[in-house]
Amino acid sequence: MIETDAPVLLSHTIRLGYADTDPAGILYYAAWFPMMERLTSEFFYLQGLRQDTLAERFGWWTVSRSTTCEYLAAARLFDQIRVELRIGRIGDSSFQFAFRMVRTDDDVLVARSSNTLVTVSPDQSRIEIPADLRALLTAWATEGT
Amino acid sequence: MIETDAPVLLSHTIRLGYADTDPAGILYYAAWFPMMERLTSEFFYLQGLRQDTLAERFGWWTVSRSTTCEYLAAARLFDQIRVELRIGRIGDSSFQFAFRMVRTDDDVLVARSSNTLVTVSPDQSRIEIPADLRALLTAWATEGT
Amino acid sequence: MIETDAPVLLSHTIRLGYADTDPAGILYYAAWFPMMERLTSEFFYLQGLRQDTLAERFGWWTVSRSTTCEYLAAARLFDQIRVELRIGRIGDSSFQFAFRMVRTDDDVLVARSSNTLVTVSPDQSRIEIPADLRALLTAWATEGT
Amino acid sequence: MIETDAPVLLSHTIRLGYADTDPAGILYYAAWFPMMERLTSEFFYLQGLRQDTLAERFGWWTVSRSTTCEYLAAARLFDQIRVELRIGRIGDSSFQFAFRMVRTDDDVLVARSSNTLVTVSPDQSRIEIPADLRALLTAWATEGT
Repeated sequence: MIETDAPVLLSHTIRLGYADTDPAGILYYAAWFPMMERLTSEFFYLQGLRQDTLAERFGWWTVSRSTTCEYLAAARLFDQIRVELRIGRIGDSSFQFAFRMVRTDDDVLVARSSNTLVTVSPDQSRIEIPADLRALLTAWATEGT
Repeated sequence: MIETDAPVLLSHTIRLGYADTDPAGILYYAAWFPMMERLTSEFFYLQGLRQDTLAERFGWWTVSRSTTCEYLAAARLFDQIRVELRIGRIGDSSFQFAFRMVRTDDDVLVARSSNTLVTVSPDQSRIEIPADLRALLTAWATEGT
Repeated sequence: MIETDAPVLLSHTIRLGYADTDPAGILYYAAWFPMMERLTSEFFYLQGLRQDTLAERFGWWTVSRSTTCEYLAAARLFDQIRVELRIGRIGDSSFQFAFRMVRTDDDVLVARSSNTLVTVSPDQSRIEIPADLRALLTAWATEGT
Repeated sequence: MIETDAPVLLSHTIRLGYADTDPAGILYYAAWFPMMERLTSEFFYLQGLRQDTLAERFGWWTVSRSTTCEYLAAARLFDQIRVELRIGRIGDSSFQFAFRMVRTDDDVLVARSSNTLVTVSPDQSRIEIPADLRALLTAWATEGT
């Protein structure tokens, strides 16, 4: 459901540890979300878009509207995984970050996920994606960074 | 998308703290998943179904196939939230746990989410929901515990 | 090393789940700290002392200086644990929150820990514990809440 | 209190994100522990010493006895931090992993911490450090890897 051919914007490679896995040594299903958040926050930061300054600087910011994750193959303790960030669907007042979790040893896609953000005014009313952000999203979705 | 009239099977009430919220004091979107996992694991345990013993005792166990979460209202630092567990859709070889996050002060539904599990053989091949589990799921979905 | 006869100020009871334990089903050593943080933040909040408002309202706030944890008995998956908060040592410009983790089934002390906070000015210079806070700490250490 | 001149065995560099910091943008004090655990687990793994196989292969394994952390300078949202692993004190039946958290921009030591492990038999009785492990620890403490 979360398909995109957009270029990879940023990736982190991590080895799964004890806190990421259950007693069967299989990935604990909540484990990907903090990695997704860390990747997204760092991407915005590296683009000069600190999320805690957006409202003041630009008159808009973003809030999470929904998230999804599909578990496609068993990821196990000590597997090394590359988490990739791409732009997914761009709508009128929302856009998606799309993630793929790829095991580096065999290039198997172990999970994919999305985070849908809506653009809001400083007082958190939903607004159409502002032109400056739309230009960035379009560039990120086609050319990367 | 995650609607169910099934009875509440178990709930935990928690006050959102620093680790659950971002610098704007708004819920960090990954925060619900560990609470969902804790609630589901405790429910199974209280039903005598320790997840780490299912394969050996019954010849089947369950793995997560997908999860979703919708953020419906801004949950904030120090809000007290009741996380409720219900049975959602029951399919041929999968079933859903459905969650509602309700702010106790004003009964506002701040989020809802689901976790879809598939039934698998001990070697992790997908199988139809076994009769013993299907009887339990049906009872949980209609009468509760 | 972290002994105190002070009364319990607040406690949370929690059942250890998958994210709290390693593949051997034994407690993951980082698991207690978020529970300690949640307990401390809720205690301050219930006392009318939201940590994010202290500097503005009172001219002082607190920052963590150090933390310790001792693991005394093996805590396991699905154990139910009561985390208790007490006041520990009160110094000139620092004080301790002391925690005990007690397994409810057999009253075994499975861990104990501390968090040492220092009092600081709004610009984060270390200051002596202000009189208003010292009066509270002394009451909490002797009479409870 | 946690000083060592031992060589760095492994390090991870990470940028602090929302889940690591409180509403004041200052490090949440529980945030270092999962990073410490991940670093230690990966180090053991890269040395061919998967912790979940030690008891069976060698007749001993290790459990955490205590941990400490000192917060020395304010680490903030988006700071990039290098977490370094070294060997600390080696005792009769215990040894320490020592950690330093260094901000990469200005080389400031923002935190240091330790994790003390004891060696145990398969049934978890405390034992003297076995000769094979002691040889490794001594090498790691003097020459590195």
